[in-house]
Formats: sequence, structure tokens, C-alpha cells
Amino acid sequence: MEEISSRKNPLIARVKKLGADKKYRREEGEYFCQGDKLLYEAVKWDAKIKTVLFCGDVPDVPECERMVRVPKDVIESVSPMKSAPEVVFTCAMPEVWEPIAAGRHLIMENMQDPGNVGTILRTADALDCGAVILAGDCADPFSPKAVRASMGAVFRHKIIELPVSSLVEQAKDIGLPIYAAALDSTAYDLRELKLPESYAFAIGNEGHGLSRELLDASAARVIIPMSERCESLNAAAAATVILWEMFRNR
Amino acid sequence: MEEISSRKNPLIARVKKLGADKKYRREEGEYFCQGDKLLYEAVKWDAKIKTVLFCGDVPDVPECERMVRVPKDVIESVSPMKSAPEVVFTCAMPEVWEPIAAGRHLIMENMQDPGNVGTILRTADALDCGAVILAGDCADPFSPKAVRASMGAVFRHKIIELPVSSLVEQAKDIGLPIYAAALDSTAYDLRELKLPESYAFAIGNEGHGLSRELLDASAARVIIPMSERCESLNAAAAATVILWEMFRNR
Repeated sequence: MEEISSRKNPLIARVKKLGADKKYRREEGEYFCQGDKLLYEAVKWDAKIKTVLFCGDVPDVPECERMVRVPKDVIESVSPMKSAPEVVFTCAMPEVWEPIAAGRHLIMENMQDPGNVGTILRTADALDCGAVILAGDCADPFSPKAVRASMGAVFRHKIIELPVSSLVEQAKDIGLPIYAAALDSTAYDLRELKLPESYAFAIGNEGHGLSRELLDASAARVIIPMSERCESLNAAAAATVILWEMFRNR
Repeated sequence: MEEISSRKNPLIARVKKLGADKKYRREEGEYFCQGDKLLYEAVKWDAKIKTVLFCGDVPDVPECERMVRVPKDVIESVSPMKSAPEVVFTCAMPEVWEPIAAGRHLIMENMQDPGNVGTILRTADALDCGAVILAGDCADPFSPKAVRASMGAVFRHKIIELPVSSLVEQAKDIGLPIYAAALDSTAYDLRELKLPESYAFAIGNEGHGLSRELLDASAARVIIPMSERCESLNAAAAATVILWEMFRNR
């Protein structure tokens, strides 16, 4: 069993950088995960596991590039979370972002919070949504917080990242209508919407909603009806209501 | 305008303790809030505002006991959050926890995360739920994190806190059926449930679900159907689906 005890070892430094730096993750095509629950999911869903660092029992990983025993303080030094677990690992990112095809997809546009991105990915996966499309400037779905909040959905769910203009163009090319969640009293009531076989439902930024570009490209604006005394639901709650209606109306 | 510049001033120490200490909050019947958005909601919903500390513009508060200008570092010292705003304040808790009456209520049992408690309260309020009933050992809905996540719902929504045994007894006394969210494949599919006029829907602890006591007292167990590859939704997402179905089936 390989062992490393120095925080300055290049492998350790690399794992740490994968957790901390989005640009580096994208250059390397590799991302950081932590905890035995996520490792279990990564193995179960055939994620391509690259490096595993552990300080407790030897983890049960059938295949990986490097399996390294390290002291607890090394795990703590690479983990971006407050409470470091006994195992951290890295996975290869899916290599190709596929183009958008027919299906029942969810779009998040400019969603800023990695916890929201991960949670919504988890809910989308649980409720049999098609692709999760991250349009514009969203939080990185492969950041440690998003990966953790996804509870493993990141290992198995199709994620497409692209600029808003490409999304609008692709949707137009394949005749995929976009429904836009909007806080607009003239919008369709979500309960009365008749959803077609194939479409994408878009939710926007936590504070500002959807961009003009995406609203203008949408087939319809849709509102989640709610009490007049409330301004809005939080982004993850709004996404959950929409994903549930998509699931219900299959 | 009253001014205080010392962190050791008794009023400052008191405000800080209200943010940090649940037991003290309950003894004093007063809780800590922060940020101009929450202050706006507190004024709008007639919360009984007691002390306001601010370091920027004088906040627009028609009525409070003490309005005190303090230096920025004093605000930072009392705030339990990482990024302190320009205003913090305290409110009196509602004095009487009313008994449970007929209605369409949500029960959270042993919900541990204050963010979940606050977010679910916000969603319950937006979706016109009856009382939000916190049974057993839940996170404090008047903790700063829960208050913030509630986005002001804490100022206007009826919250009832009680032991599980009292809940079960009160529900039995008034003939209020309890529906129990359960990850149990023999449970009723949420989509097929016919909800009566008056009931309470219970969701459990993040990791362990509902207690045996509450399950045994329930009229029916109900499952949120989902993809087989998922174990569960997160607690706030599960609550959102249930609250939305309650809203839809009014």
C-alpha cells in the first residue's frame, strides 16, 4: 500500500488544488469528492475514480489509479470542508458534453450557489428528469459543495454546460420548447400547464430570475402560484415544485 | 439617537447572547435577526421589535424599544454569521403556543438542521399551509440561521412546538389524521392520496425519518415516488413536494 505523509507531496497538492480551483479542475478534467458515502456511490455508478486518499480502514474500491494511505492531518489539509472525513478521492469528468436531444430537461441559468446546483441535481435525478442543463454563469457542478449536495447524482446524471446563446440556438434547431419559470402574474399557472412530450423547463438566478435572452426565447412563462404575502420560494424549492410537476405529468 | 461603542456594554452582550444561546432566547422570550431585508419584513408583519443596532443609515422602524447606533465592529461582534450586515435587531417571541386546531398542517419531527427548518417554514408559508408544527427535538426556528432561511415567514406564520407524545394526543383528541412521509414501498403513492379537509402531514429527521411513535399514530404512510436509483430526496425537497401537493389538493 502506497503511503504519503507530507502535505507538500505533489499528489497531495494536486488533490487539494482540484478541490479549490475550478479552472484547474476543468484543465485537468478531474474533480474532488469526499466521504465514504460519496465513494460508495462513485463505485456503484462506475465513476472513473483516479486518486483515493484515506486515513482509516482501506476503502473498498475495485479500480483506481492510486490508493494512498495518509495521516489524518493530510486529509484535513486537502479538504475544503470544515469537518474532514476519513477518505477523499478524485474522479475523471465525463469527457464530452453531449448536444441537447429530445427529452424532459431542466435548465438552470446563472444559478450561483453550489449547494443549490447540487441539491437541484439530486432532486432532478430522483424525479427522473432528462438532462440537467447549466446555462450561462452557474456554480460549478463539480465543486466539492455541489458534488456533496448532489449525493452522488453527479456520478450518474447527464449534465450539459453551455452559454445561453448556444442553448437557445440548439433548442430552436431541434424544436425543443423552453418553459420559463417567472414571477409574473400574467404567466401561466403551473397547475394548468399542458406539457408536451419533449421540452426544457428553465429556472433562473437566485436573486434575479431568468435573463431577458432566455425569457424572450421561451415558449411560455410559467408561475408557481403561491400566497400573496410571499415574494418567492427559494431557488431549490421552486426547482423542486417544477421537477415534481414534470414527473407527475409524464 | 442613542450610541454605544463598547462590545462589553450589557445591551450589546445581551443581543449577542440572544443570537448564540437557544436556552437564553427561550428564557427571555426574544430572538436575534439580522439584515435590512429581514427588518423590512419584521416591520411589515408587525413583529414586536425590541432592540435595533445599526452602523449605516438610520433604519426605518416605526416602533421599537431601543434604537442604537454602534460601530461596525460591534455589529460584527454580535453577529453569528460570517458576513455581518449593517443592522441587527431582536424581536419578542409570540407568547402563547396555541393548541392544534383543524386545518392543513405540516409537522416536522426531530428536524436537525436550522437551515432546513427555516427553508421549510418559508415554503409552508408561501404555499398557504396551516400551522408548522415542530415535534420532538427540532432545530430552533428562532435561531439566526432558521430566521434568515425563513425570509420573514417566522414573523407571520403560526409555529407550534411540542413533544411528540403531546402532538399525538392532541391530534387524537380533535380527530386530526396524521399522514406520515415514509420511504416504504408498501406506503401510499403521494399522487394517489385523497387528502381530507383537515389533517397534518409529517416529515421526519434528515437521516432517520419519523419515529416509531409518530408512524404508529399515523392514519397512513405515504411515499414520494421516485427513481429506483435514488435513496431519497433531501429533507427540504421532500417537504416541498408534500407542501405543493397539499396546496394543489386544497
